[in-house]
Amino acid sequence: MIESQLCQLVGIKYPIFQGGMAWIADANLAAAVSEGGGLGIIAAMNANAQWLRQEIRKIRTLTQKPFGVNVMLMSPFVEEVAQVVIEEKVPVVTTGAGNPSKYMKAWNQAGIRVIPVVPSVNMARLAERSGAAAVIAEGGESGGHIGELTTMALVPQVRDSVSIPVIAAGGIADGRGVAAAMMLGACGVQLGTRFLSATECGIHPNYKNKVITAKDLDTIVTGRRLGHPVRQLKNKFSRRYAKEEYNMAISDEELEAMGSGALRRAVVEGDEENGCFLAGQIAAMVHKEQPAAQIIEEIFDEAQAVLKEAGKWVK
Amino acid sequence: MIESQLCQLVGIKYPIFQGGMAWIADANLAAAVSEGGGLGIIAAMNANAQWLRQEIRKIRTLTQKPFGVNVMLMSPFVEEVAQVVIEEKVPVVTTGAGNPSKYMKAWNQAGIRVIPVVPSVNMARLAERSGAAAVIAEGGESGGHIGELTTMALVPQVRDSVSIPVIAAGGIADGRGVAAAMMLGACGVQLGTRFLSATECGIHPNYKNKVITAKDLDTIVTGRRLGHPVRQLKNKFSRRYAKEEYNMAISDEELEAMGSGALRRAVVEGDEENGCFLAGQIAAMVHKEQPAAQIIEEIFDEAQAVLKEAGKWVK
Repeated sequence: MIESQLCQLVGIKYPIFQGGMAWIADANLAAAVSEGGGLGIIAAMNANAQWLRQEIRKIRTLTQKPFGVNVMLMSPFVEEVAQVVIEEKVPVVTTGAGNPSKYMKAWNQAGIRVIPVVPSVNMARLAERSGAAAVIAEGGESGGHIGELTTMALVPQVRDSVSIPVIAAGGIADGRGVAAAMMLGACGVQLGTRFLSATECGIHPNYKNKVITAKDLDTIVTGRRLGHPVRQLKNKFSRRYAKEEYNMAISDEELEAMGSGALRRAVVEGDEENGCFLAGQIAAMVHKEQPAAQIIEEIFDEAQAVLKEAGKWVK
Repeated sequence: MIESQLCQLVGIKYPIFQGGMAWIADANLAAAVSEGGGLGIIAAMNANAQWLRQEIRKIRTLTQKPFGVNVMLMSPFVEEVAQVVIEEKVPVVTTGAGNPSKYMKAWNQAGIRVIPVVPSVNMARLAERSGAAAVIAEGGESGGHIGELTTMALVPQVRDSVSIPVIAAGGIADGRGVAAAMMLGACGVQLGTRFLSATECGIHPNYKNKVITAKDLDTIVTGRRLGHPVRQLKNKFSRRYAKEEYNMAISDEELEAMGSGALRRAVVEGDEENGCFLAGQIAAMVHKEQPAAQIIEEIFDEAQAVLKEAGKWVK
């Protein structure tokens, strides 16, 4: 067993969160991760209160274990979603895409452990000051919306800047990544891409297949021109988007419109040409479909072995 | 002591290389690093045979310990430089910016340990096949010319793809970074940015000061439009360059010309407005000027402590 304060903090066996991936992280996937001893997380993404409430109630039929909801702060439904997590007594809330200060007091009063995803030292400090129970320091090698700093550079800097627990995310695929994160000062990890291959992950088979067959250089970052960089797998859609970013005949609005619906086309339709297949750089380290519980066990068996051996470097 | 095969391979006390930074890594800095127990490296950059020979002869007056030369494969003088390292019996050659296969045979015959910097699995495999003694897997959080993959994602993938030793570079500032690199499968590290603050590093005081005062988000990547991304500190020059990359009224040639001489302006003149101050994301973790030997000792004292404690995570 890996002994981490994160396990006590949120009541889990293994110090691992499953990332709150929009369109992907639903009650089924989250329940499988929680049942496997990690913290499963439902992504509220741009969904409304009704959808989220339904998923929360569904996960409670699938597991008795703790779970979380990821609140995307730029969602048009963020106000009602922020209320639902209180009403439904969600044990853990992670937040993305902004500063959750506005909701912290109400969430903390409701007994929710709030754990923001942060891309920088300042955001980590702000989270701590406003009452976060921990922070997830996410490096830009991860999939989806990304920050500038990488996990190697970000985690120790965040560790040195706050007193609350730090969870590392981005670029972690296996037990070696978990062990490395711990050396950098994290007390746990959040993984997204690896869980895309979980049997319980409901993405289109084409998506899963693209992840499983990806090579090291198969991701690309688009959206830098609009200031919202997003990491995804290379395909016709992402290559074209990347090219058009340097085409000034294309307005920012047209560029924005190009991305519209692309995630849905990937996740639901498996449209390999026109879909946006979000994935992190470690997609190349994901080799097969397996149950979420098995993924977690495999990762921590390896992490334990690697950490036990670490002392052997020292003579 | 940290026991690593890298120490035996190149005859050093601590498994650490100093990056071959153009305009920066000269005989003085390299000698200080080698004297401190690491591997100091002279950057051949775009210099000619005469300059390099002079630096090699100079380092031999400063230290008896092993050192290296970094051969920049895109240099106009690469042919003569490749010959000089043989004639001068340089013990270690690292290579950057390309595929060194062409020179490998002659270098290996001369008894040189060749250790290419690689940004991907394929380049690592190619290096091994053509006779490299090890590879340096460098993540894109590092300063200067960068690849796409980050250290967390790249190192384990390279480790799984080759049998020769893997050295991790990018995003490493202290002993925690060294320990993390080892968990990922590296047997040593290469650091550039941290050595910018070495007393023996001859960069302009303004450059050193910019590194020492940098914050986490103070680096920026320019050059993506031309396909040669370069990480540097934010200043008037780099912000303007980054902006002009999206200005299609500026031709690729004009953009290229904007960068000309900018590194010299930073290193030699300390021109804070118009210089290109290369640095990695961990600049924010560099807090003071100290002798290279002290930097190395501090890093490995910490690495040793962190690695010794690693087993305590496991119960």
